[in-house]
Amino acid sequence: SRSINLAVIPGDGIGQEVVAEGLKVLSAVLPQDVKLETKEYDFGARRYHATGETLTDADLDALKQHDAILLGAIGDPSVPSGVLERGFLLKLRFAFDHHVNLRPSKLLPGVETPLKGEPAIDFVVVREGTEGPYTGNGGTIRKGTEHEVATEVSVNTAFGVERVVRDAFARAQARPRKKLALIHKNNVLTFAGHLWTNIFNKVAEEYPEVTTEYMHVDAATIFLVTQPERFDVIVTDNLFGDIVTDLAAAVSGGIGVAASGNINPSGEFPSMFEPVHGSAPDIAGQGKADPTATVLSVALLLRHLGLEAEAARIDEAVAADLGERAGKPARSTSEIGDALAVRVAG
Amino acid sequence: SRSINLAVIPGDGIGQEVVAEGLKVLSAVLPQDVKLETKEYDFGARRYHATGETLTDADLDALKQHDAILLGAIGDPSVPSGVLERGFLLKLRFAFDHHVNLRPSKLLPGVETPLKGEPAIDFVVVREGTEGPYTGNGGTIRKGTEHEVATEVSVNTAFGVERVVRDAFARAQARPRKKLALIHKNNVLTFAGHLWTNIFNKVAEEYPEVTTEYMHVDAATIFLVTQPERFDVIVTDNLFGDIVTDLAAAVSGGIGVAASGNINPSGEFPSMFEPVHGSAPDIAGQGKADPTATVLSVALLLRHLGLEAEAARIDEAVAADLGERAGKPARSTSEIGDALAVRVAG
Ligand SMILES: CC(C)[C@H](C(=O)O)[C@@H](O)C(=O)O
Ligand SMILES: CC(C)[C@H](C(=O)O)[C@@H](O)C(=O)O
Repeated sequence: SRSINLAVIPGDGIGQEVVAEGLKVLSAVLPQDVKLETKEYDFGARRYHATGETLTDADLDALKQHDAILLGAIGDPSVPSGVLERGFLLKLRFAFDHHVNLRPSKLLPGVETPLKGEPAIDFVVVREGTEGPYTGNGGTIRKGTEHEVATEVSVNTAFGVERVVRDAFARAQARPRKKLALIHKNNVLTFAGHLWTNIFNKVAEEYPEVTTEYMHVDAATIFLVTQPERFDVIVTDNLFGDIVTDLAAAVSGGIGVAASGNINPSGEFPSMFEPVHGSAPDIAGQGKADPTATVLSVALLLRHLGLEAEAARIDEAVAADLGERAGKPARSTSEIGDALAVRVAG
Repeated sequence: SRSINLAVIPGDGIGQEVVAEGLKVLSAVLPQDVKLETKEYDFGARRYHATGETLTDADLDALKQHDAILLGAIGDPSVPSGVLERGFLLKLRFAFDHHVNLRPSKLLPGVETPLKGEPAIDFVVVREGTEGPYTGNGGTIRKGTEHEVATEVSVNTAFGVERVVRDAFARAQARPRKKLALIHKNNVLTFAGHLWTNIFNKVAEEYPEVTTEYMHVDAATIFLVTQPERFDVIVTDNLFGDIVTDLAAAVSGGIGVAASGNINPSGEFPSMFEPVHGSAPDIAGQGKADPTATVLSVALLLRHLGLEAEAARIDEAVAADLGERAGKPARSTSEIGDALAVRVAG
C-alpha cells in the first residue's frame, strides 16, 4: 500500500476556496490502498502581516518532508508588489530547484476561446524555472533621484539550460506529433540567446525523430493567436515562459482552466503544483472562483507521483464537466468541485 | 515652400518592394510646394556580405543630414542571427536616440482579426527604445563548455524612463479617452519595476485627467486577446514593448498593416519609420508583400514632420482600401501601392 504525504498551501484570496475543491477531488480519485496525509501551511499575506515572514528556513525544512506541494495562490493588494512573489513563490521555486515549470494548454470541447475557428490547441510549455531574469540579480543606485539606475541581470547557465532542454526533448519524443519549438529572442539577447540556441541544436542531434523550430518570442505571440495548433511542445526561458503561458491560457479557455507544475525531476525536493491564476482578491470568498485549474493541477501532481490512471480520470472528468457547461447557469466553486468529485469516483 | 530630405533604406527581402510603394504614395500625397528629396542607402545583408559592414560612423554622419528615415526591413537567413539586428537596426535606434518607439494598433473596418466579436481596437503603444534588455550589456564566460554562463543586463535609468513616460502621458492627455496603462513585471523585476512604477506614479500627478492602470506583462497578453478595447495608450519597456506590439499587431489585422516610428522627439537626430514586419525572405521578390504597413509608416513620418493633413489623407486612403478588400482577389504589392497613390492624390 502507498501513501502520499502532501503539503497544502491554500494561500491568499481564492486560493483557499479552490484548494479545498482540489483536495475534495484528490480524495475522491485515490484508490483505497493509497493513504493520503495532508498538512496545511498558512503562508501568504496573513502570515506576512502577522509576523513579517514569508518563508523561513524552518518552513523550507518542514516542506521538504512532503512528497509534493499543492498551492492555491499567493498575493494580496495589501502587500507591496514583489514581497510575496520574491519572498515566497520564487524563493520556494528556487530553493526546491523547480527547474521544469510545466504548463499544458489544451482547448477542450465546449470551452470558449477568444479565437475564431475553434483551433485544435494541444501543447505543453516547458518553462525554465530557476534562471533567466528571475534570479533577483541586479540592483538600484541613486534610488529615488533623477540619476537612479536600476538593473536586472538575466543569468543563464549551460547546466540550467541543458537540463530543461533535455526534459523538453524527452516530452516531445513521447508525444505523437514529436514537435519542439524553442522560443527566445536570440537576435537581440545574443549572449543568452546563443547559449540557448546552441544547446538546443546540440541536444536535437540526439532526437532525430523530433521536428524542431526556433521562434523569436515576439513572433511566437503572433502564432499563438493565428496558428496555435502548430505547437506541440515549447521550451523557453523563465520570463518568456511566464508571458507565453498566460497568452496560451487565454487562447485555450482562460486561466480558469490553466494548470501548472513546478517540477524537480530528480525528486531531491518535492515538486509543487498550482493553478496559473492568481489570488483574485476581487472575487475571493464569494464561491465564484472556478476550481478547475486547481483540479487539473492535482492531475499533474498525481502523474508526477506515478499515479497515471488517477490523473487520467481527473482529466477525463474535467473534460466531461467542461463539455456540459455551455448554456447552463454558472455553478459555485464547491458545486463544480462536487461534480468533479462525483465523476472521478465514477 | 518646404522640403523633405528623406533617407531611404529599402534593406532586405520584401523591404525593397514595400518601400517603393511607400515612396509612391508619399510622392502622390505631397502638395506641390513641398519638395521631396530622397537618397537611397544600401544597408543590410548585401552590404554586409560584400564589405563586412553593417553601419559605420560615416554612414551615421550621412544619415544625420536627413529630416527623416524610411526603412523597409533588415534581415536575411544568410546572416547569423543578431548581426544585422544589433549591428544595424539597434545601432541606429541607439545612435539616434530613438527613445519613443511608437506603434499604433487600430482594427480598421473590413480587416480580419483572429478574435471573435470584432472588438473596437484603437490604442497606441509607446515602447521605450534605448534601454532595458536591449542595451547589449552582458556577456558570456566559458563559451561552448558545460560551464558556460551567459548574462543579459537590463539597464534602466530615471532619465530614460521619465522621458518616455512623459511622452506617453502627453499622448494619453491628447486622446479622447485619456487612458494610460503601464505594462511591466514589477513583482519579479523589482529593481527596474519599481523605477518604472515610481516614475509613472509621479508623472501621473501632473495629469489628473488621465486614468491610469498598471498591468503585469503576462496579464497584459491576456487582456490583449480578451479585452483589447480596454487599451488607449500603453507605455512599456523595450522588450515588453517588442512582445506586446507583435501581439497587438496580430489581433488588429496582422503585421501586414502594423506601422511604427522610432522617434527622437527633440529632433536632434532624424527619426526613422518602418513597418513592424520583417524582411520575409520566403515571399521576397514575388510582389506578394502587402505595402500597407509601410504606407502607414509614411503617414507617421508625415505627422512627425508636421504634415498632419497629408498624414490623415494616407490614413483615410488605407482605411478605405482595406474596407473594400473583403471578397476581392488578392492584389500585388504594386497594385495596392497604385490604388493608395490614386486615393491620396484624389
Ligand atoms: C506571481 C508571479 C511571480 C509568477 C511568475 O511570474 O512566475 C506568476 O505570474 C506565474 O506565472 O506563476
Ligand atoms: C528585429 C528586432 C531587432 C526588432 C526588435 O526586437 O526591436 C523587431 O522585432 C522590432 O520589433 O522592431
